[in-house]
Amino acid sequence: GDLATLDTHRTLRVGMPEVVLAESKTAAQVAAIARTLAARGPLLVTRLSPAKAGPARRAVKGSVYDPVSRTLRKGRMDLPARGPVAVCCAGTSDIPVCEEAAVTLEVMGVEPIRVYDVGVAGIHRLLARRDDLERARAVIVAAGMEGALPSVVGGLVGRPVIGVPTSVGYGASLGGLAPLFTMLNSCAPNVTVVNVDNGFGAAFVAGLVARG
Amino acid sequence: GDLATLDTHRTLRVGMPEVVLAESKTAAQVAAIARTLAARGPLLVTRLSPAKAGPARRAVKGSVYDPVSRTLRKGRMDLPARGPVAVCCAGTSDIPVCEEAAVTLEVMGVEPIRVYDVGVAGIHRLLARRDDLERARAVIVAAGMEGALPSVVGGLVGRPVIGVPTSVGYGASLGGLAPLFTMLNSCAPNVTVVNVDNGFGAAFVAGLVARG
Amino acid sequence: GDLATLDTHRTLRVGMPEVVLAESKTAAQVAAIARTLAARGPLLVTRLSPAKAGPARRAVKGSVYDPVSRTLRKGRMDLPARGPVAVCCAGTSDIPVCEEAAVTLEVMGVEPIRVYDVGVAGIHRLLARRDDLERARAVIVAAGMEGALPSVVGGLVGRPVIGVPTSVGYGASLGGLAPLFTMLNSCAPNVTVVNVDNGFGAAFVAGLVARG
Amino acid sequence: GDLATLDTHRTLRVGMPEVVLAESKTAAQVAAIARTLAARGPLLVTRLSPAKAGPARRAVKGSVYDPVSRTLRKGRMDLPARGPVAVCCAGTSDIPVCEEAAVTLEVMGVEPIRVYDVGVAGIHRLLARRDDLERARAVIVAAGMEGALPSVVGGLVGRPVIGVPTSVGYGASLGGLAPLFTMLNSCAPNVTVVNVDNGFGAAFVAGLVARG
Amino acid sequence: GDLATLDTHRTLRVGMPEVVLAESKTAAQVAAIARTLAARGPLLVTRLSPAKAGPARRAVKGSVYDPVSRTLRKGRMDLPARGPVAVCCAGTSDIPVCEEAAVTLEVMGVEPIRVYDVGVAGIHRLLARRDDLERARAVIVAAGMEGALPSVVGGLVGRPVIGVPTSVGYGASLGGLAPLFTMLNSCAPNVTVVNVDNGFGAAFVAGLVARG
Amino acid sequence: GDLATLDTHRTLRVGMPEVVLAESKTAAQVAAIARTLAARGPLLVTRLSPAKAGPARRAVKGSVYDPVSRTLRKGRMDLPARGPVAVCCAGTSDIPVCEEAAVTLEVMGVEPIRVYDVGVAGIHRLLARRDDLERARAVIVAAGMEGALPSVVGGLVGRPVIGVPTSVGYGASLGGLAPLFTMLNSCAPNVTVVNVDNGFGAAFVAGLVARG
Amino acid sequence: GDLATLDTHRTLRVGMPEVVLAESKTAAQVAAIARTLAARGPLLVTRLSPAKAGPARRAVKGSVYDPVSRTLRKGRMDLPARGPVAVCCAGTSDIPVCEEAAVTLEVMGVEPIRVYDVGVAGIHRLLARRDDLERARAVIVAAGMEGALPSVVGGLVGRPVIGVPTSVGYGASLGGLAPLFTMLNSCAPNVTVVNVDNGFGAAFVAGLVARG
Amino acid sequence: GDLATLDTHRTLRVGMPEVVLAESKTAAQVAAIARTLAARGPLLVTRLSPAKAGPARRAVKGSVYDPVSRTLRKGRMDLPARGPVAVCCAGTSDIPVCEEAAVTLEVMGVEPIRVYDVGVAGIHRLLARRDDLERARAVIVAAGMEGALPSVVGGLVGRPVIGVPTSVGYGASLGGLAPLFTMLNSCAPNVTVVNVDNGFGAAFVAGLVARG
Ligand SMILES: Nc1ncnc2c1ncn2[C@@H]1O[C@H](COP(=O)(O)O)[C@@H](O)[C@H]1O
Ligand SMILES: Nc1ncnc2c1ncn2[C@@H]1O[C@H](COP(=O)(O)O)[C@@H](O)[C@H]1O
Ligand SMILES: Nc1ncnc2c1ncn2[C@@H]1O[C@H](COP(=O)(O)O)[C@@H](O)[C@H]1O
Ligand SMILES: Nc1ncnc2c1ncn2[C@@H]1O[C@H](COP(=O)(O)O)[C@@H](O)[C@H]1O
Ligand SMILES: [Mg+2]
Ligand SMILES: [Mg+2]
Ligand SMILES: [Mg+2]
Ligand SMILES: [Mg+2]
Ligand SMILES: [Mg+2]
Ligand SMILES: [Mg+2]
Ligand SMILES: [Mg+2]
Ligand SMILES: [Mg+2]
Repeated sequence: GDLATLDTHRTLRVGMPEVVLAESKTAAQVAAIARTLAARGPLLVTRLSPAKAGPARRAVKGSVYDPVSRTLRKGRMDLPARGPVAVCCAGTSDIPVCEEAAVTLEVMGVEPIRVYDVGVAGIHRLLARRDDLERARAVIVAAGMEGALPSVVGGLVGRPVIGVPTSVGYGASLGGLAPLFTMLNSCAPNVTVVNVDNGFGAAFVAGLVARG
Repeated sequence: GDLATLDTHRTLRVGMPEVVLAESKTAAQVAAIARTLAARGPLLVTRLSPAKAGPARRAVKGSVYDPVSRTLRKGRMDLPARGPVAVCCAGTSDIPVCEEAAVTLEVMGVEPIRVYDVGVAGIHRLLARRDDLERARAVIVAAGMEGALPSVVGGLVGRPVIGVPTSVGYGASLGGLAPLFTMLNSCAPNVTVVNVDNGFGAAFVAGLVARG
Repeated sequence: GDLATLDTHRTLRVGMPEVVLAESKTAAQVAAIARTLAARGPLLVTRLSPAKAGPARRAVKGSVYDPVSRTLRKGRMDLPARGPVAVCCAGTSDIPVCEEAAVTLEVMGVEPIRVYDVGVAGIHRLLARRDDLERARAVIVAAGMEGALPSVVGGLVGRPVIGVPTSVGYGASLGGLAPLFTMLNSCAPNVTVVNVDNGFGAAFVAGLVARG
Repeated sequence: GDLATLDTHRTLRVGMPEVVLAESKTAAQVAAIARTLAARGPLLVTRLSPAKAGPARRAVKGSVYDPVSRTLRKGRMDLPARGPVAVCCAGTSDIPVCEEAAVTLEVMGVEPIRVYDVGVAGIHRLLARRDDLERARAVIVAAGMEGALPSVVGGLVGRPVIGVPTSVGYGASLGGLAPLFTMLNSCAPNVTVVNVDNGFGAAFVAGLVARG
Repeated sequence: GDLATLDTHRTLRVGMPEVVLAESKTAAQVAAIARTLAARGPLLVTRLSPAKAGPARRAVKGSVYDPVSRTLRKGRMDLPARGPVAVCCAGTSDIPVCEEAAVTLEVMGVEPIRVYDVGVAGIHRLLARRDDLERARAVIVAAGMEGALPSVVGGLVGRPVIGVPTSVGYGASLGGLAPLFTMLNSCAPNVTVVNVDNGFGAAFVAGLVARG
Repeated sequence: GDLATLDTHRTLRVGMPEVVLAESKTAAQVAAIARTLAARGPLLVTRLSPAKAGPARRAVKGSVYDPVSRTLRKGRMDLPARGPVAVCCAGTSDIPVCEEAAVTLEVMGVEPIRVYDVGVAGIHRLLARRDDLERARAVIVAAGMEGALPSVVGGLVGRPVIGVPTSVGYGASLGGLAPLFTMLNSCAPNVTVVNVDNGFGAAFVAGLVARG
Repeated sequence: GDLATLDTHRTLRVGMPEVVLAESKTAAQVAAIARTLAARGPLLVTRLSPAKAGPARRAVKGSVYDPVSRTLRKGRMDLPARGPVAVCCAGTSDIPVCEEAAVTLEVMGVEPIRVYDVGVAGIHRLLARRDDLERARAVIVAAGMEGALPSVVGGLVGRPVIGVPTSVGYGASLGGLAPLFTMLNSCAPNVTVVNVDNGFGAAFVAGLVARG
Repeated sequence: GDLATLDTHRTLRVGMPEVVLAESKTAAQVAAIARTLAARGPLLVTRLSPAKAGPARRAVKGSVYDPVSRTLRKGRMDLPARGPVAVCCAGTSDIPVCEEAAVTLEVMGVEPIRVYDVGVAGIHRLLARRDDLERARAVIVAAGMEGALPSVVGGLVGRPVIGVPTSVGYGASLGGLAPLFTMLNSCAPNVTVVNVDNGFGAAFVAGLVARG
């Protein structure tokens, strides 16, 4: 009926079922789509505000809503992963973006290693977590304001680093564009970048890398 | 003497010797750095114009200069790769960026599959190359002007796609910023992005993925 | 009295009565203008929020308000059209913009063909609707985020394609400027562009083309 | 051999053979592509500087090079057109863009009506040409600096108006982005817009409209 | 006490008492400043929302608040003016900015001639008011969206034209920056420009011109 | 023949003959237009580089070329002016823009008072010239880099101040956009602004003010 | 437990305990962090809205909340300072930013000299405070709109001047980016700049200078 | 004669004689100004290209030209300094900017400590120079591309850090605006920023700090 045309071959094609971006949908639309998708495999809904989460949570028995990452999920894929993915952030305000990434990894069947609040203005905090970074197959690094952390991490590891600029900041942070440009200009050659606050996208790519 | 402080632990740390970005160096500086690096392992110099290539090529016996990719190289790493990397572009003007990527992959010991001139305004050309895309471990997609190709490729494969916006275009292409934004906004979740014309960076990450 | 100076020769001159842009007008102003215009011919009010629609709907007997397209309309022009106009969009969030276009076409006496949720990251969905695209005299394509769909459609049809960037997206979508630039840079030569979210303008031009 | 993969179905699909954008190609590449295309139908090469035109002109017997529009062409399509297309500009500096449009129309088999140097700061010059505007099936309007002319023309005619911002101007003209934004914000609803200096694209769409 | 250091020599120096910009002040602050200023000469408060106007209106006996222009005023200067100033706008949504200008002129002792809703997409409306434009000593022209009106007016009169870009519009109007750039690029040489929505500033300068 | 359609009523309408902007014209075109215009009244050609000046200077007997202002002129209008116009600048690099203004004033029959090199970082230099500012009917202020001078001047005089941002500066001066924004945001209410480096436009408006 | 990893060596390393930026934290988080920090030394919380201040104020006995600067503080460092720091602003709307700076200085043990409402459009107000400026070891200058004040102050004193652009303004002030660019382009060589509205950062640096 | 009005009280007022910015001056102008200034005290000319340096060097006996920093200097001030200033940079391409800073410090009588090529992607190189950073009274940090180095340095020292964004980079580095924004958003509170490539300005402020 009034559902969007779901892209049902997607799991086969790109290794992950369609993930619901709830932001521009009503609670009822989210619930209907979630029920349909959950009938076929693991479910992940992102950008779901607490105010809109109820109907979808009730529609999918066994689903879990998390207000920090603003995700609803159920189940996980059982493809094998060759190792974990580290999820780092510069400051505590970046944690919601990191948690969106961590939850996405879990649904993909990949273990996230959380390395939070290790921003560059106190570099010893990052160096203290070097072992965790080194055992990861890929590293996600979220940072707002100056967005410098991915470059430093990129110089420490020999794995793909995925920078996620966040909208944390004010004035010259330009709503996240400043850290976005910082990351794109990284002199560490193993850094690629996703859109502002896009924890899901970063995790999806990191998950593909971890799976091999 | 007047050499830059070379980052000699880099190969151990990030899996690749330091690569020389020749753009802001003199021919003599490039030659001196190239000789030093070539004594220790594989050599790759990028953004080296034909006018400046001579001294470095002569300084490193057995090195090869390629004017399309504007690279000088010698040798290759012998780490094993688990598969090839596809290198795609929308139009013929994007080929120099793709060739910078392809040469980088070769020096990393990874096979590039070239899929050129398959822009979205004639989508059948891309669909005809689907087999090549599917056997790749990662896909690099360079595109200028509207930069739409990574999204389409991202929807066709279940591997990381690395978008390289190019400075090909005029007016509203904003020197490559327009395709850069296009790629960052990709609705395909497996797309990450590097700086404008940065074929080297895209290849470096794709190579890390291919190596596993 | 306090009405705006209506441009009464407009129908003769440009083939369409003045259309009311309700956004910066009060409910009472809209109602007064709507009554005056409806006395002379077909009526179309756009950007009319549900909260402000009541007075105008009551002022014009037989008028119909639609909350998705946010339009109030009555009647239609009876100029002959030589064929339909296709109205496409990439995602479900673009539908309100498409419906503004579809309603405008209907008031102009032109048949809209709706082709929704056919974004480029799942290109088979678009290819499946090729027949619908081919029988259209002009094609309207709305897309937010990366805005790549008009280029792909432009490569499939030999008719004018009118791109409508939408404000759907976040971060690097720059409130619709990113897909706007994407469309302006289209390598398909049959694409022209209107302002962000301007479904009305796209439909007006497409309607003129369909009329011949 | 080293030719680009030509999109040979394009004429059937979009009603025009592939047009060569010479800007980022060498004189030899242009000559080779031009010879191939000219063997199959009408030829149009755009953005061809006088310095690079020789080899292509010699390669295609009977071809004509025009230094104002910077085009090389031979032949024209013989699809019927239902009427002419007006090509207007604000100032004499916009004429090269207009001529690119006029030549494109001629190759498409559509008659251009030239209405030049009729900028808004001397509005009587435009009003004096109203008859020419009114017999056109579509109107192309090129303008740099403030780019106001398409709005005025749009208010005078009941046909699609295609605005072409030009890079004529300095300072706050932002290389053509200022008139681009002007045209996108046009309060005349029959105006659509193409990229800066893109006379070819404007003419291609206007030609499709004129053909019906 | 807690009043701002008022610039008491201003009237002598620049021909106008200090005008209060209420936007970032509390109702109580505005009332206190207004009372002080009104004790010394004519009073003008701008950007005063209806919600904040009460205290100031009560504090200054005989003052008048106008919700369209959002001004509070009392008295007028009695310097002689050599003629009136025309205040024009493109659309009805620009009227508040024009009224801010008109009220400022009245407080300066200069007669405003209102010429409203004469946008360029219906140019006959402007031409019909030519007499009014010609008897003015200066012309203020407010316009949002494409902001083209000052150029057209500038070509009709031999007096200073002061363009006021307004924030009316959406998408590519960039909150008024698009018409701002339009006006700065005007090919009519008698156009100067003030900040977005700055009806007061335009009127102040026009008033100085009218006074001689 | 191949001349632009000259706007011959302009002197009557706007009080100044057409002024030639030579930038995008050939030396031959400038010479031809200059001869035609000089036959009818005072001549002013702006933005004329030394390399292109010869033919026009020879074509118009008695014309004078000045390489600092890059103008060619002959004659002056003999409308009466009510007083002089001050032309100020912040640094020596702004002098060419000021001279374009001064020459334009002279051709309009208005006396320029030059007040050069009085930038805000040494405010005593400006204060020492206060008498000159005060006898002017209008003040032109050119400044690059931070563009702060018009605000300071605006606070010192009770006349219209016309700010001319210049392209002098680097990095964050954004080619003149930074001082342009500075001037538009001036807290002095008597400041209006023209395009970057537009000494001619500033002088034209100041001249109209001085004439009354 | 759920506290951020506090950077406890910071006082030793950078001469100031960690300062809490409350903006993106909950009232409870702020209270918990404040209690921990207050146990170890002087406390400063910035960007704390009145609505969120209660819990932290109650959690730290003896702390003082100030709604103008939006700070909570307790105690002060007792490092010796070699002199005071002047804190200037252009208009009354900039005072909150100045007070954030002044409070920060006080917590650092440095005396602030307040020099408020001395904007450049009434330059005598600033010149009247020259003695205060001259006895300062560093000068903080906050300004919105055109942001010209730091350049003028920079020309008056032989000490470091720290410009703080504020978000006061509208339209072309670009939310503070315009005064930011103004200050970065300052022709006074003793001006450095911090982020928009960043009174804290300016004070921190000025405090370091004053301490020596 | 044709010299600029030199600001002769400057040394007394701001502690440094006027420094000549040669960029927009002719070789002859520079020579004349240099001779005048050198007669009164220490001389510093910046942004002097090798091609223009000859006349000034010959005009001032004993002056020294350095092509890396592009400075001409003679003598030094003999005010006492309380300690050295560190001058750091991320990559070898930033060295010219650093040398402009180092030379300026030397003319001010302050010792520069050079810490070059210590970018964040190889953080051990910076940590190895910690002693040098710690004995400095202020630290200048130049960086292009992502501009992350000032934040890291800011977290290591308790002194003012002055960030100098450089124009080294391409694409998303926006000619130095990207590292400029990075530095303005620094989460290290001791970082202030100067214009792109402005080594002179950074050194001037650092020199004032070092002098106390
Ligand atoms: N074409 C390229 N584009 C971007 N970065 C590059 C390129 N080639 C080399 N690099 C990086 O730049 C670094 C060298 O910088 P440098 O110390 O200035 O030579 C290398 O370690 C690479 O990571
Ligand atoms: N949704 C819309 N988007 C853009 N322009 C519109 C829209 N609806 C109406 N218009 C145009 O705005 C004009 C009305 O402006 P106004 O005089 O302010 O009511 C109409 O003549 C239309 O050309
Ligand atoms: N230096 C200048 N800057 C801006 N506009 C100018 C300048 N000189 C002349 N103009 C204007 O440009 C118009 C000429 O344009 P055109 O028809 O292309 O020669 C003149 O009528 C002037 O109003
Ligand atoms: N490299 C530089 N970058 C920025 N400003 C400079 C530089 N060198 C000198 N200056 C400043 O520019 C002023 C000289 O400007 P001018 O009067 O045009 O010579 C000097 O007083 C310095 O403050
Ligand atoms: Mg922290
Ligand atoms: Mg091709
Ligand atoms: Mg969908
Ligand atoms: Mg003309
Ligand atoms: Mg209207
Ligand atoms: Mg000077
Ligand atoms: Mg004040
Ligand atoms: Mg290096």
